[in-house]
Amino acid sequence: MLQAPPAEPGMREDEIDTPALVIDLDAFEHNLDTMAALLAPTGARLRAHAKTHKSPVVAKLQMARGAVGQCVQKVAEAEALAWGGIPDVLVTNQVVSPRKLARLAALSRICEVGLCADDEAQVVLAEQAAEAAGIRLKMLVEIDVGMARGGIAAGPPAVALAERIAASPHLIFGGLQAYHGSAQHIREPEKRAAAIGEAVARTRRTVEQLAQRGLACAIVGGAGTGTFRHEAASGVYNEIQAGSYAFMDVDYAKNDDAPPFRHALFVATTVMSRAGSGIAVVDCGHKGVAVDCGMPGVWQRPGLRFAGASDEHGKIVVEDGAAPALGERLRLVPGHCDPTVDRYDWYVGVRKGRVECLWPIAARGGMA
Amino acid sequence: MLQAPPAEPGMREDEIDTPALVIDLDAFEHNLDTMAALLAPTGARLRAHAKTHKSPVVAKLQMARGAVGQCVQKVAEAEALAWGGIPDVLVTNQVVSPRKLARLAALSRICEVGLCADDEAQVVLAEQAAEAAGIRLKMLVEIDVGMARGGIAAGPPAVALAERIAASPHLIFGGLQAYHGSAQHIREPEKRAAAIGEAVARTRRTVEQLAQRGLACAIVGGAGTGTFRHEAASGVYNEIQAGSYAFMDVDYAKNDDAPPFRHALFVATTVMSRAGSGIAVVDCGHKGVAVDCGMPGVWQRPGLRFAGASDEHGKIVVEDGAAPALGERLRLVPGHCDPTVDRYDWYVGVRKGRVECLWPIAARGGMA
Repeated sequence: MLQAPPAEPGMREDEIDTPALVIDLDAFEHNLDTMAALLAPTGARLRAHAKTHKSPVVAKLQMARGAVGQCVQKVAEAEALAWGGIPDVLVTNQVVSPRKLARLAALSRICEVGLCADDEAQVVLAEQAAEAAGIRLKMLVEIDVGMARGGIAAGPPAVALAERIAASPHLIFGGLQAYHGSAQHIREPEKRAAAIGEAVARTRRTVEQLAQRGLACAIVGGAGTGTFRHEAASGVYNEIQAGSYAFMDVDYAKNDDAPPFRHALFVATTVMSRAGSGIAVVDCGHKGVAVDCGMPGVWQRPGLRFAGASDEHGKIVVEDGAAPALGERLRLVPGHCDPTVDRYDWYVGVRKGRVECLWPIAARGGMA
Repeated sequence: MLQAPPAEPGMREDEIDTPALVIDLDAFEHNLDTMAALLAPTGARLRAHAKTHKSPVVAKLQMARGAVGQCVQKVAEAEALAWGGIPDVLVTNQVVSPRKLARLAALSRICEVGLCADDEAQVVLAEQAAEAAGIRLKMLVEIDVGMARGGIAAGPPAVALAERIAASPHLIFGGLQAYHGSAQHIREPEKRAAAIGEAVARTRRTVEQLAQRGLACAIVGGAGTGTFRHEAASGVYNEIQAGSYAFMDVDYAKNDDAPPFRHALFVATTVMSRAGSGIAVVDCGHKGVAVDCGMPGVWQRPGLRFAGASDEHGKIVVEDGAAPALGERLRLVPGHCDPTVDRYDWYVGVRKGRVECLWPIAARGGMA
């Protein structure tokens, strides 16, 4: 069932029920404006990745600043965005379930939708679903640009798959999906640039070979918050798929040349026990803040360290200065924003210490 | 919003939309029956921990086999259970928010509720909430039995806090909360037994000192799936708070003397990409299966290893034997059940290859 929201507009921030997912609206808007300003001179378009925010409201604010659409990872996310009024959604992933393909085809009546393939079998399944629905689906070829996860080999194998798509009567060849996920978190700027240099080379070669076969790439998409400046400047990528930039997490902030975005997403938490010596226990464990990329930071409290997460308890070690009081509120900076957002039903938007808005996280959770 | 269920009763298991949380009903019922049989000769009662399952349906099945109530970690979980008809719920945690205490007090009109304290300030707040609601709240003293997280020191400090509760006109002293969480995952049986031996000693001493002051402990609660046989045999603990036994995860199964429970909880997933060499990519990453206690296992496919989790992708390495086909279904065994359940809105109950039931996970998510 839908959870009751943890706050109401007009409340003071310290009245929010915890744990709660809080957006600092000033920092968030700064991030959206900054990305728009950084991309404007490059000519690359923003198709922000909604796997970060899972919200049609956030998507609309990105599109109001020039984003041309949204990326998603799953059909259920595409539905949540399309039902929320977003007109253009790309599933940056393969879809092999006939039921899901039927849902995606149905969605194409209210939204421009696309998906990816790295195997001929996916093309056959998508063609069948599109034919059954009496529509045409846009399909991109995902190429492996160095991550060794999904993606067909760049060059001739990718070209052959694109020709297979273009020859399918109910499919439209939409271009290339060329995302290098693991490069996002390489700390050293030179190594990160080198990884993207290789991705750009593979992508450029494939685009050229496609052009020789008469196939134009409407979309050449990829990039994330850690690398987008390289892809945007490449002259090859025309769509940037960054998502985390809107919120920024501890992990991206560790990159040596962290991009100029502010921490805008926090988990509000409360000290519920001070019985232990030198520690404070807060009401947020790993069910409330993702720890897959490390522990969260404690915002503007340098003497406090979030040392460990149980299911519903966080252990804060007092390393320096005063311990927080029983009942005191702290803000945690998530180590990884995307899965943290996925735990909650509501964003609580805060400005100048007051709750300004509540936004449902419409696409959250482990849905198919 | 509530997610659409990923299946319908009567479907074949391979028709379930993935990722999905699947209960093997035969194994699950075996686990519930086994726990009831193991505890029967000890005289200790089961108050199963609902932080694992988050479902009034599962709670009712436990209580049908003799459990006397349920434990929860949060007020929102207590609400979900009470609203689902569970008559007796203990919050095994401190509550310091006046709004949450008011909710708990309100709940006490339809359900026997209790909560814990490890500081006098929590007693004062609970007394105020109970007085305002015109009811009496049951309050236990949480003692530290070796985990060094929450909990007041055993012995005289705990006795003084119990007396403070007993002297509060709107509170009822309910006994001791004495859970040793970190002992659950000690691999060597002897070391685990020694840790619980120390917990039992601290608890016994405190119970005796309370009795000397005329304070009886209706509840002496603690224990988890890794240690409950020790607490149940102690003659001191009278309530066992195990939760994971109902499902069993990879982590508990690693204990040297793993208890006789079967893996009953799985994440159903589908191979969506086979483009990479020697790997298969499935549609379940760390948003779909918790990795805080390690990667999931691949059920009954010893040649396949779940090697890494991105947000929505799982990378399966083919170490031996045949690679799974594109579109093939696999079952993952979660490394840690509790946070995995928390990602989903629905359980899909399966027996003999068919979907038998769908149960909502009413208390899921990062709610307060």
